[in-house]
Amino acid sequence: MLQQRIYFDNAATTALDPRVLETMMPYLTEKFGNPSSLYSYGRETKMGVEAARKSVAKLLGAHPGEIFFTSGGTESSNTAIARSVTDLGCRHIISSPIEHHATLHAVEYWSKRENIPLSFVKLDEKGHVIEDSLRQLLSEAKDRCLVSLMHANNEIGNLLKIKNIGNLCQEFDAIFHCDTVQTVGHYPINLQDIPVHFITGAAHKFHGPKGVGMLYINENIHINPLIRGGGQERNMRAGTENIYGIAGFAKALELAMESHEEDMTHILSLKNYMAEQLKAIIPEAGFNGDYSGSSLYTVLNVALPKNPKTEVILFSLDMAGICVSGGSACSSGADTGSHVIRAICPEQEQVPVRFSFCKHNTKEEVDIVINKVKALI
Amino acid sequence: MLQQRIYFDNAATTALDPRVLETMMPYLTEKFGNPSSLYSYGRETKMGVEAARKSVAKLLGAHPGEIFFTSGGTESSNTAIARSVTDLGCRHIISSPIEHHATLHAVEYWSKRENIPLSFVKLDEKGHVIEDSLRQLLSEAKDRCLVSLMHANNEIGNLLKIKNIGNLCQEFDAIFHCDTVQTVGHYPINLQDIPVHFITGAAHKFHGPKGVGMLYINENIHINPLIRGGGQERNMRAGTENIYGIAGFAKALELAMESHEEDMTHILSLKNYMAEQLKAIIPEAGFNGDYSGSSLYTVLNVALPKNPKTEVILFSLDMAGICVSGGSACSSGADTGSHVIRAICPEQEQVPVRFSFCKHNTKEEVDIVINKVKALI
Repeated sequence: MLQQRIYFDNAATTALDPRVLETMMPYLTEKFGNPSSLYSYGRETKMGVEAARKSVAKLLGAHPGEIFFTSGGTESSNTAIARSVTDLGCRHIISSPIEHHATLHAVEYWSKRENIPLSFVKLDEKGHVIEDSLRQLLSEAKDRCLVSLMHANNEIGNLLKIKNIGNLCQEFDAIFHCDTVQTVGHYPINLQDIPVHFITGAAHKFHGPKGVGMLYINENIHINPLIRGGGQERNMRAGTENIYGIAGFAKALELAMESHEEDMTHILSLKNYMAEQLKAIIPEAGFNGDYSGSSLYTVLNVALPKNPKTEVILFSLDMAGICVSGGSACSSGADTGSHVIRAICPEQEQVPVRFSFCKHNTKEEVDIVINKVKALI
Repeated sequence: MLQQRIYFDNAATTALDPRVLETMMPYLTEKFGNPSSLYSYGRETKMGVEAARKSVAKLLGAHPGEIFFTSGGTESSNTAIARSVTDLGCRHIISSPIEHHATLHAVEYWSKRENIPLSFVKLDEKGHVIEDSLRQLLSEAKDRCLVSLMHANNEIGNLLKIKNIGNLCQEFDAIFHCDTVQTVGHYPINLQDIPVHFITGAAHKFHGPKGVGMLYINENIHINPLIRGGGQERNMRAGTENIYGIAGFAKALELAMESHEEDMTHILSLKNYMAEQLKAIIPEAGFNGDYSGSSLYTVLNVALPKNPKTEVILFSLDMAGICVSGGSACSSGADTGSHVIRAICPEQEQVPVRFSFCKHNTKEEVDIVINKVKALI
């Protein structure tokens, strides 16, 4: 009998929704014209790209002119960070030690390359940004700052008070880049209400295709592209448009927002149920981050006591067809452990296991996983 | 009756081969795991990525470790150019005025940003690079040079003597970046035989998917990534892999090379037939570039005499369901005419029309287009 796979790693990537694929199919078959071509066959795909842009803009409370399609969240964050330094006069970068590597490695690079200070905000014991620490850094900075803080942490799920941070940045005339890769498609985001200069998105985090992302650039700022060449994306991102990816991004976001309330309720109930069950079977387990407070409803990061059995638990669960991770997929290859867990629990010997859920997961799957964990430990 | 569309703009983009789509489909449906995830379900897609890399490497005479997947040709060229300047000590850039904008805009940017000279090689009357001009520039340069010259011009089809240029670069210890976007998938390329540091590819130019490209980095040089973050592509290109795109790139290249000889013969016969027919119906027409000499078999760029009828010919052909272009799709939006044609024929008043063919085109289609052109002029 074939083993049933249980996929609890939806913060790493999600399954493509068949309805998204259906939207992409015309562009993978008959509608292959280059959107930059001037003939009607090109204008047809151009219209697809622009319809996608309009839809995404509307769902995020932005103007279509503020939405740029990219190859993914990493490129989007890299663009925002690079151009804040080279084009917007930011000579001081403020970030946090628990950002995704797409941010961390970019801010480290630019700080070094331009010889400008890189400061990290302090985090409280639950891993939240301490706003007073940010205020202090901003007030002490000699130059214009770039503040790069993520909306939701991909490993521990903590949510940033994005409006407060935006207001603080505004007060100090700082540029605010918010990595929203884990929240676009998961929460309603109304950019009319949030003072932020850059946000990012990646379709594959909300049942859209891989290889396509979004960068929101607030209309009040003007930057040069990161990738130069043709005039695509109104000269902001060169390269023939990934038309099926772009169409898929928009459709995935539409679907996500359509059923957002019920999906959130369902997924949160799974997360809470899983947390309860884990506490019941492993009373000495803790949870990383503010799991029951201001936290992504999709992510639960459990801190297992370190012992020979827990040290191989990811492997053991994999053998049982259960997909979970120790942290970010993007840094899995490095095998150096999680920089996020190290930053928030430097002292604790633990084995972090991230469970991340989606609308397709069920209570029955949680039960199977709990039984397996119980048997393994 | 629905009008039959004739697509003669294959240098802009090509139709996705259904066999390529078939190869992509598993990754668009059940195989959605993140290749960076450590569990077996992630390793499954990782294996797909690595199999694609191996196949591409083999077809190009490279080592798998020299092949990096990107979001497209533009990103690939941007990476090569940026990192030659920042990481390989190139303090002088030599290029040509007829490069694609992905190169031209990148070399202009880096020359300006780093305040380093940018020189253009001289072209002969057919638009070919004059090798002695390159030799002179290299011998007069005070610092290490980056030479960026394209293998085949996307507008006029001229082919570069890539080996000669590579040898010349080697003689002067220059870094050689060759934009091969129009030749990968169209000619056998054996990198064992060509002294070049960077070449680039875009799947959608040879019936593969849009949104995915390739950068070859010669194993003897070491650069940092352009896009930073996770450890994907052995730390050379961050961001969750576009697995269907990558699988599609490899499959498209395999198919292209399988039938390369017969496709080339067929396409070249269409090009030659079209050129003859055009000469017959418009004796005063010329051809841009070395169309009957060292030239891409896919591209024919005709110089029509400028008059009220030819000035609207692209539009008139479009109305008849015929897709052709005035030059590069990537600069169509700008509506400033072709920088390539301006560079090679600065004096001539002409209307350039680029016909570019693929294996699906037929002699019957050429006849229809010729009849239509005849009727219009």
